[in-house]
Amino acid sequence: MSNAPPLPTAGRGAKKPASQRIPAIAQPFVSDKARKLLDIIEKWVDEECIPAQAVYAAQVGTGDERWNGYPSVLDDLKKRARELGLWNMFLPRNHYSNLAEYDRYGGAGGFTNLEYGLMAELLGRSTIASEACNCAAPDTGNMEVIARYGTAEHKKKWLTPLLAGEIRSGFLMTEPDKASSDGSNISLSIRKEGNDLVLNGSKWWSSGAGDDRCKIFIVMGLSDPDNQDKYKRQSMVLVPAGTKGLIIHRMLSVYGYDDAPHGHAHITFDNVRIPASNLLLGFGRGNEIAQGRLGPGRIHHAMRSIGAAEVAQEWMIARLNDERKIPFGKPLREHGVLLEWVAKSRVEIDSSRLIVLNAAIQIDNGDAKSALTEIAQAKILTPTMACTVIDRAVQSHGAMGVCQDTPLASMWAHIRTIRIADGPDEVHLNQLGRRETRNRAQECIGRLQAQKQTSEELFRRYRVPDKQLGGSKVQGFTAKL
Amino acid sequence: MSNAPPLPTAGRGAKKPASQRIPAIAQPFVSDKARKLLDIIEKWVDEECIPAQAVYAAQVGTGDERWNGYPSVLDDLKKRARELGLWNMFLPRNHYSNLAEYDRYGGAGGFTNLEYGLMAELLGRSTIASEACNCAAPDTGNMEVIARYGTAEHKKKWLTPLLAGEIRSGFLMTEPDKASSDGSNISLSIRKEGNDLVLNGSKWWSSGAGDDRCKIFIVMGLSDPDNQDKYKRQSMVLVPAGTKGLIIHRMLSVYGYDDAPHGHAHITFDNVRIPASNLLLGFGRGNEIAQGRLGPGRIHHAMRSIGAAEVAQEWMIARLNDERKIPFGKPLREHGVLLEWVAKSRVEIDSSRLIVLNAAIQIDNGDAKSALTEIAQAKILTPTMACTVIDRAVQSHGAMGVCQDTPLASMWAHIRTIRIADGPDEVHLNQLGRRETRNRAQECIGRLQAQKQTSEELFRRYRVPDKQLGGSKVQGFTAKL
Amino acid sequence: MSNAPPLPTAGRGAKKPASQRIPAIAQPFVSDKARKLLDIIEKWVDEECIPAQAVYAAQVGTGDERWNGYPSVLDDLKKRARELGLWNMFLPRNHYSNLAEYDRYGGAGGFTNLEYGLMAELLGRSTIASEACNCAAPDTGNMEVIARYGTAEHKKKWLTPLLAGEIRSGFLMTEPDKASSDGSNISLSIRKEGNDLVLNGSKWWSSGAGDDRCKIFIVMGLSDPDNQDKYKRQSMVLVPAGTKGLIIHRMLSVYGYDDAPHGHAHITFDNVRIPASNLLLGFGRGNEIAQGRLGPGRIHHAMRSIGAAEVAQEWMIARLNDERKIPFGKPLREHGVLLEWVAKSRVEIDSSRLIVLNAAIQIDNGDAKSALTEIAQAKILTPTMACTVIDRAVQSHGAMGVCQDTPLASMWAHIRTIRIADGPDEVHLNQLGRRETRNRAQECIGRLQAQKQTSEELFRRYRVPDKQLGGSKVQGFTAKL
Amino acid sequence: MSNAPPLPTAGRGAKKPASQRIPAIAQPFVSDKARKLLDIIEKWVDEECIPAQAVYAAQVGTGDERWNGYPSVLDDLKKRARELGLWNMFLPRNHYSNLAEYDRYGGAGGFTNLEYGLMAELLGRSTIASEACNCAAPDTGNMEVIARYGTAEHKKKWLTPLLAGEIRSGFLMTEPDKASSDGSNISLSIRKEGNDLVLNGSKWWSSGAGDDRCKIFIVMGLSDPDNQDKYKRQSMVLVPAGTKGLIIHRMLSVYGYDDAPHGHAHITFDNVRIPASNLLLGFGRGNEIAQGRLGPGRIHHAMRSIGAAEVAQEWMIARLNDERKIPFGKPLREHGVLLEWVAKSRVEIDSSRLIVLNAAIQIDNGDAKSALTEIAQAKILTPTMACTVIDRAVQSHGAMGVCQDTPLASMWAHIRTIRIADGPDEVHLNQLGRRETRNRAQECIGRLQAQKQTSEELFRRYRVPDKQLGGSKVQGFTAKL
Repeated sequence: MSNAPPLPTAGRGAKKPASQRIPAIAQPFVSDKARKLLDIIEKWVDEECIPAQAVYAAQVGTGDERWNGYPSVLDDLKKRARELGLWNMFLPRNHYSNLAEYDRYGGAGGFTNLEYGLMAELLGRSTIASEACNCAAPDTGNMEVIARYGTAEHKKKWLTPLLAGEIRSGFLMTEPDKASSDGSNISLSIRKEGNDLVLNGSKWWSSGAGDDRCKIFIVMGLSDPDNQDKYKRQSMVLVPAGTKGLIIHRMLSVYGYDDAPHGHAHITFDNVRIPASNLLLGFGRGNEIAQGRLGPGRIHHAMRSIGAAEVAQEWMIARLNDERKIPFGKPLREHGVLLEWVAKSRVEIDSSRLIVLNAAIQIDNGDAKSALTEIAQAKILTPTMACTVIDRAVQSHGAMGVCQDTPLASMWAHIRTIRIADGPDEVHLNQLGRRETRNRAQECIGRLQAQKQTSEELFRRYRVPDKQLGGSKVQGFTAKL
Repeated sequence: MSNAPPLPTAGRGAKKPASQRIPAIAQPFVSDKARKLLDIIEKWVDEECIPAQAVYAAQVGTGDERWNGYPSVLDDLKKRARELGLWNMFLPRNHYSNLAEYDRYGGAGGFTNLEYGLMAELLGRSTIASEACNCAAPDTGNMEVIARYGTAEHKKKWLTPLLAGEIRSGFLMTEPDKASSDGSNISLSIRKEGNDLVLNGSKWWSSGAGDDRCKIFIVMGLSDPDNQDKYKRQSMVLVPAGTKGLIIHRMLSVYGYDDAPHGHAHITFDNVRIPASNLLLGFGRGNEIAQGRLGPGRIHHAMRSIGAAEVAQEWMIARLNDERKIPFGKPLREHGVLLEWVAKSRVEIDSSRLIVLNAAIQIDNGDAKSALTEIAQAKILTPTMACTVIDRAVQSHGAMGVCQDTPLASMWAHIRTIRIADGPDEVHLNQLGRRETRNRAQECIGRLQAQKQTSEELFRRYRVPDKQLGGSKVQGFTAKL
Repeated sequence: MSNAPPLPTAGRGAKKPASQRIPAIAQPFVSDKARKLLDIIEKWVDEECIPAQAVYAAQVGTGDERWNGYPSVLDDLKKRARELGLWNMFLPRNHYSNLAEYDRYGGAGGFTNLEYGLMAELLGRSTIASEACNCAAPDTGNMEVIARYGTAEHKKKWLTPLLAGEIRSGFLMTEPDKASSDGSNISLSIRKEGNDLVLNGSKWWSSGAGDDRCKIFIVMGLSDPDNQDKYKRQSMVLVPAGTKGLIIHRMLSVYGYDDAPHGHAHITFDNVRIPASNLLLGFGRGNEIAQGRLGPGRIHHAMRSIGAAEVAQEWMIARLNDERKIPFGKPLREHGVLLEWVAKSRVEIDSSRLIVLNAAIQIDNGDAKSALTEIAQAKILTPTMACTVIDRAVQSHGAMGVCQDTPLASMWAHIRTIRIADGPDEVHLNQLGRRETRNRAQECIGRLQAQKQTSEELFRRYRVPDKQLGGSKVQGFTAKL
Repeated sequence: MSNAPPLPTAGRGAKKPASQRIPAIAQPFVSDKARKLLDIIEKWVDEECIPAQAVYAAQVGTGDERWNGYPSVLDDLKKRARELGLWNMFLPRNHYSNLAEYDRYGGAGGFTNLEYGLMAELLGRSTIASEACNCAAPDTGNMEVIARYGTAEHKKKWLTPLLAGEIRSGFLMTEPDKASSDGSNISLSIRKEGNDLVLNGSKWWSSGAGDDRCKIFIVMGLSDPDNQDKYKRQSMVLVPAGTKGLIIHRMLSVYGYDDAPHGHAHITFDNVRIPASNLLLGFGRGNEIAQGRLGPGRIHHAMRSIGAAEVAQEWMIARLNDERKIPFGKPLREHGVLLEWVAKSRVEIDSSRLIVLNAAIQIDNGDAKSALTEIAQAKILTPTMACTVIDRAVQSHGAMGVCQDTPLASMWAHIRTIRIADGPDEVHLNQLGRRETRNRAQECIGRLQAQKQTSEELFRRYRVPDKQLGGSKVQGFTAKL
């Protein structure tokens, strides 16, 4: 960022620490332990992670070197995170049986979804903070899956180094030629051959697969294509990186970003052979695993997006107070249209946060089924909100906003993908709308009918004609009954 | 409603009672007492008030009779409300010193703003429920004002019958030729003459002034035009209806609705003389009173709008399931665009509710000053949301939606005015944006500068050049430092 | 309007006459004759019709008198219109065979759809101008229908007095319990009995039926329910007002407006008997007639809406320059948000106008079939645009905007119905989208495939590998072929 | 594109050639010569340019090589363009005095702004077509400037090779620390020293400066800082690439895209010395030149954006008809929400095109001053429209839409910058709103006042009371006069 125009001059200000900015309505749900950690996280993210981002970018190579090696600044941030007690906060203690091992790696978990959600918002302020405290997707979901459904062997081989942040992992679900929003469309084939499983097919958008440290993939495939229940046709298996036949084709870009060194890979499976013991949970139970992964994952994504939106709002506020920007004789902070943007962004960010936190509490209450609507609301509302807020900040920065001199353009591009990942908005809107329309049909029709009937009784009781417009024009305009 | 096309046929459904539909995040804030009342209110509103609305409308006269008399069905509903223990729920017990009198009238108050907010949502489902349990604006705010600032004499003469629901009241603030969004623009003159106060000027949008039972007006006027503090120039006084010189000019319509028998009056003050003892709180303290009125009032308005939006959503759901509406061979509930509307409305209603409830808690926490932003958010977000939701329901009903056969058109028109009343949205957006932009300037600039500085230190420490795009094209492309 | 607050003081300005404000791109299509008339119409509308609106409203009775009689000021305006040569401009000369009669009534027709469209915009500035020059719906469409499809007898009895502006007419299509957007849903029964036709069923939204001068209804009914072609099941007939069994039930309101004395009627047909000679065009040809009616009618509606939007814009400009409105120390015209509204409205009005004019030319080019898309665009774009523009003007007027003191609230309510009338927006959007998606499928897929194929040939020819992101990470990263 | 999933299978379709798709309303303005060229351009763009884009991308190097060399496929396309008579179409013949030279390079110019606008739309379908026929920005504007204001020497040295497509050029206006939307903020200093001019300062967003063939920059600077007229303080000069002291700092990215080999450069001027003869037009006349450049340039940009939007629409249509995409049992083309997107995009594209074409005609009519509003409309409406249309196409493609497998993500990012370039939307909206609000104040207020006055006269003439709502409630309710 050092060639970029200098920032406007101004003294340091202060804001209340994160623990004191929790919305009034959410406060009863946050433990003291979580409050303390929130303030540590915020300080670490703002003072150590964000400034390290430019160094991280500079440590990534160019040309073919771009996909090799690993920025050392991130390893240092990881060390520092563990010193601060910031490690694996995402992992609910109850999902992980081998506590000794978990504790060995300094796990700071055991938080509710609401509490970790508040932390995820702070992590979302930085592009590298989540990874630096071992809370980055898809590792978080993958660790949960192995902790819940993996065998002791799986845990030893994959979960232990993942918990330690020594390796990373991929999650292979989406396929290039399918409407992946409908899980029953998966077509990568998993065939049993003796004690082996043989995989053939294609996956893409495997985020993180470019990373040299990515050592294990969780892969969803079609194992029982003839099963009558179309949601029991799929299984999930563990495929080590480097397995023969697993070919990384190419990396995909997000708008113009290649996201090296992690990247988003397009991968082909050409007779990839793994031991049958690499199966997770059981044949035909892939969707079961996938479902459990979704709720909390969506909360995390949503809260990180909110964190990004807050960063955008702060860049915008700084810009509006930049004393060198005086178009048409009036500083930017005097332009009513821009002030309205700030206000709208504030309302939209805050209402999204409440929606997500309410969904988190619903999950925490243990009734994931009843949280379906709340999670969908969080999924639908948040990325669009964040894109809108960030785009306002881009626009207020002019040409500076679309280039590398602020984090805005990159944040926008990456949050834009969340409107697509894990089902496009339209699928979630459709399901939410369908559910409400169907489930409440009887109730709504019934009530309106009952009200109409009661109303007619009242007309009789009060002996009043049901006057309608029209006066003498209306034929037979007399008392109604 | 009886000439309207019949409703679609379907059995009665059921929904969980109101007390069980409180958002998870708000539950810690609702007492058992409030929960019980919520369920009673809901039942009463849906089963008794809403069906009585058409009778109420029919009991209002036509032509010149339109502004005389009073629908008897409403008096019966009032009686019923008191039987059910639904009376004056809006009034916080602490504001009312003479508890004996309050209790005599069956006051069911003592609720927090959050609790009463949840009740107001249910009352907002009906156009007459609020009045039927003595919780209608502007009486609510007026009673609070007299309870807080009135003398024993004021209370005896006006508060007692208001609490009993025997009389109604008006609140005269807005003036026709002013930008009323700025309180310092008030120009109705209040002049002291001996022991009297003499009022001259003009007020409009005095809601309820058409009602025969409207007996007292609280009037804001300019009493000290030369005061250096422009917010100390105004005073508030009590003017009894029928005082000589107080002339109701005409009634104003809202879109095409005249809202008889209450109406919205344009009133002229022509040397209206009242005793000086009718002054409230003290000379120059009008704005002080006005400010205290705003917070809770905005919560009530917002929650009633949410109640109306829920009713619209229910009409829409009933419509989508109407078996007689099969355009182009597909029932309405199969049309994706309409399902998306239902989903969006659900998300928008629920997020608005959380914003308002959070603001209510902030007020309940006793820190009205710090609730400024939250109240503004509720004020900005809710009426626009409700108008949008209702308009979707209108559109899905086709021609039926714009006429008297549903409550939709009327609800839309009245909630549309809330985007203007008490300051147009744009004023609130501007103030909210300005506050955030100014208050956070130092903080945001400071943090970005500190981050930049830390980043530069890191570049030195890691001895990495700050690579920028351009490769060999860039002159002097070497390590940065 | 006389009790309303006075208008801001300012001198009279001037604008270029209508003929000089025709968009550059439309100028080649406007004859000198039309240009001259445009300027006369504008002057007459602005200087005579608009000022007469308040008198018209005051001449309509109250209570039961509301639906009787006829405002004399309108008859005077009609007289004046004929003096100015403004009469029946809507009627294309070619549709009317008996020119002598047409000319006798001072018909100023023979204009193209584009030319009359420009006139309709000016007429749409006033609520009464269209009727005052005998160009009001539904008479315009009805006159065209009788001119085209009526017998000599029909013409003598109904067309002659309609052309003379002595009677008015209704058009009965929409039914209360149907998805009327799909014409094949019509259910009012037309049964042949000897030489008679017997009608049974129900119609609503019969605009103008409240008017004492409304003497003839064109009614669409179901005459051949078993016809295999579902668009040949309907017929159109002429039913004189006052026929036995034709019962006006009640009048419908539009957002509180009853639109007396014309109104919108809900009508029942109870064994209404008419001579078979009242059939138009032929049995089963109702849809054929209906279709021909739609194109030009939609252009007229759209252009009138644009005229209303221009009036709203003018009220808004006047408001922003009102010297008495200085909220927060800055006149309204200095508030950036409001200036942006003015600008957006200007862009939206002007682009809508071009869309409608382009559709009009497409119809004028004689190829109504190919104008389908263009007409749909005009139908979709214009009323939503006009509602948006008017709503901005309402909001900028504050409380004044929603009441009777400006034409804004009423204009909004009535244009809001155009988003529903003649098929809700969603039906037109769906059909437009479906048509483009289907018709262009082959073309679009074909071109993309051909481009891909050519691209692959070029890769071979240029001997260049199809590099993808990923560098050394990608297995088998070599030249592609 | 060859690793991307294959396109859906379908036969080639056909569409009417470009010359037959000109909107009806624009047809009178297009010459036969232009029509012929339109069809050639369309074929060449679709069949030769678009397929070459992937080869072009592959010919750009990686790593440091990225900014060197030049894709040979583009040189071949240039050759082909000249064979087809497609060269320098942008240049109005009248601006270029030395016709012989112009003709020598196969110039196909002499078109109106409307005609070239239609061509630009077709060129905008491809990322490389404009350059391939020597019609790419900023060369187009630069050639016009030199043709108009350059000396014979300038023309010989720079215009001749630019016309021949042998070199390229840059335009340096925007500065990093300024609100560049206000031209008077330019601060790069131009100081006279003897017969030299010395430049000091900084410019960024110099598009094309990365290109090896970029040989000349037109630079705007501050030459007379004390001039009372702040728009006469600036001058424009010609600075050859490679001049000592002109340092390319770095290249800027656009949402991750580096746009190599052209790029967007950040350039420092450190005592750059040029002969005073490199001054254009005269001291202090920089703004004069800049103004003349804007109108046509905005039309070109706008039309190219429309071309891109059409491509996005075609990708979307192909996607909706992709037989492999059947989410939830229904092909995408049956999903109502997506069909509505197609329809809205069609309406928005077509209305934007009419707005731009109307502006082009206004310029062609020779009255650039009166075209101010029309050009602003085109500038405001088009890029936002195109971004919306493209974003719909992205969303309908799911993950495929954000990566390199379609042109959508890249098109979006680049058109997004047009909402900023040459003044952000908000500046243009503000100016447009301000102009209309001010210029029409007198006219609008005057007309409303005159109408009110006439209305009052009519009330007297018709002897009717100005009834207002309120009936007997209103005191003194009698005839008004």
